[in-house]
Amino acid sequence: MKSIAVIGGGVAGLSASIYALRSGADVTLFEQFGLGGLVATIDKIENFPSYKSVEGWKLANDMASQAKALGLKVIRQRVLSLKKSDMGFEIVTDKGEYTFPSAVIATGTAHNKLGIEGDYVGRGVSYCATCDGAFFRNRPVAVAGGGRSAVSEATYLANLCEKVYLLVPSAELDAEQKAVEELVSHANVQILYNATVASVCGEDQVRSVKVYSDGQLSEIETDALFVATGAQPVTDFVQINDLKRERGYIVVDGRGETSVKGLFAAGDVTSGSLKQIVTACADGAKAGSFASAFSAKAK
Amino acid sequence: MKSIAVIGGGVAGLSASIYALRSGADVTLFEQFGLGGLVATIDKIENFPSYKSVEGWKLANDMASQAKALGLKVIRQRVLSLKKSDMGFEIVTDKGEYTFPSAVIATGTAHNKLGIEGDYVGRGVSYCATCDGAFFRNRPVAVAGGGRSAVSEATYLANLCEKVYLLVPSAELDAEQKAVEELVSHANVQILYNATVASVCGEDQVRSVKVYSDGQLSEIETDALFVATGAQPVTDFVQINDLKRERGYIVVDGRGETSVKGLFAAGDVTSGSLKQIVTACADGAKAGSFASAFSAKAK
Repeated sequence: MKSIAVIGGGVAGLSASIYALRSGADVTLFEQFGLGGLVATIDKIENFPSYKSVEGWKLANDMASQAKALGLKVIRQRVLSLKKSDMGFEIVTDKGEYTFPSAVIATGTAHNKLGIEGDYVGRGVSYCATCDGAFFRNRPVAVAGGGRSAVSEATYLANLCEKVYLLVPSAELDAEQKAVEELVSHANVQILYNATVASVCGEDQVRSVKVYSDGQLSEIETDALFVATGAQPVTDFVQINDLKRERGYIVVDGRGETSVKGLFAAGDVTSGSLKQIVTACADGAKAGSFASAFSAKAK
Repeated sequence: MKSIAVIGGGVAGLSASIYALRSGADVTLFEQFGLGGLVATIDKIENFPSYKSVEGWKLANDMASQAKALGLKVIRQRVLSLKKSDMGFEIVTDKGEYTFPSAVIATGTAHNKLGIEGDYVGRGVSYCATCDGAFFRNRPVAVAGGGRSAVSEATYLANLCEKVYLLVPSAELDAEQKAVEELVSHANVQILYNATVASVCGEDQVRSVKVYSDGQLSEIETDALFVATGAQPVTDFVQINDLKRERGYIVVDGRGETSVKGLFAAGDVTSGSLKQIVTACADGAKAGSFASAFSAKAK
């Protein structure tokens, strides 16, 4: 019986499981928390093809049920380490040790937080313009951050929103000149430097943010605050030296395989170009299919 | 206003439209027939993440409604040619001429048919083992074809089904030695050479196939016939010489862009590794997002 391990129970891991199970593999998924990952925490999703609007918990729950109905085994333990051995891939958790001929890493990313988001996440505070920008069409929005992703998020929003305030924590933008040029070509973008978001205001929903900028405290009216201060791929448990990475993200080929034979990765933890629910699912489909095929050959 | 053209109304084209529309682009989709493409013709889909089981027409219809609600314009005309000009991309249809700064090709593939499928498609006759193999777990199945895809489909099914008959039209298999070795390592695979499928039998559902092999007519009991005689990407209308292809399929980068700047492609028409509904949707999401961004820069 071919068997594979999937590490991480977000939508990439669930999709990998669904595809591997359907191809006849025995799939064990390791997840410390509930299934569905970040998606389960999203209020409203309007960009997953086929759903005009769906709640995150529902989408996550449907995928989890689908995988379980196919025979998914879930081990609710924290993965402490993943190592390569002659036997395949060794997973050590807080409660046991396991070995699989093939494994899929689908542990996603952790957003860097500002620390002042409070209960506004999903009510004006967002970590993804492509996901949530359309909710604020023709409205004023703010973006916090000064790097590549902040510039990209602000540019995306400039095409969509009435006004975009870019709140840069330092004295300059840290992004490619071309990207910055494109951003500033939009008349509706206003950049504030040395700007720290002090607090978010509004009843139920974001209505303004208070910002320290050059020693002055001001209040900016905005319907949304996009936090674009980066994210970190969750790979601290991976103890395999020759695993190729790019800015910390795992590099995979068109089949979802990493630089280590038999080791696959899917979703936000990879260096893919667009990080969306549907791309994570597609990554999972590839990784799950080809991990299963690898495992079949390994016997 | 940034605008893009999407050619082809299957799920890749619809997903591209959804993503481009949400990013603020004006999207015109060209489709000669109904929206939903091949997916709309599938009886039952059980591998699209979040749906345990869904009818193809419903999934297609939901995506079409979602795109229309966002403002999709559909031009129901046949695209005769796509050319590159100084103005961008020129589309000539049977009824008009259009120019866009950016375009997404999502015209899919056309399966090579045996000619004897009749009404059995979706009732035992299938063109995709990854899609439909799981419906025939522990049952006997047949695969018609002798190339790379036939070997791959038969191997996939060998891990899942009780018995796999591979019906090869010529005297030998035309696939990589390694792939063939893996296939024949499965004890439940039986290969018939010089085999032509004469007809499919069964009431409502496939129960057997009649096969001419080495001059003899025999009847093989099987619950399914997987036709793996290849498919052709639909690109005959593309009149751009420097568009990079691989075995006829359009080559794209991680952002869905082709070798021609501003021209994107998504779904089965591309050279991607796994051709599934969810991967077509993810391709579309990428192509739609980056085509929209390209169009915004082109002004």
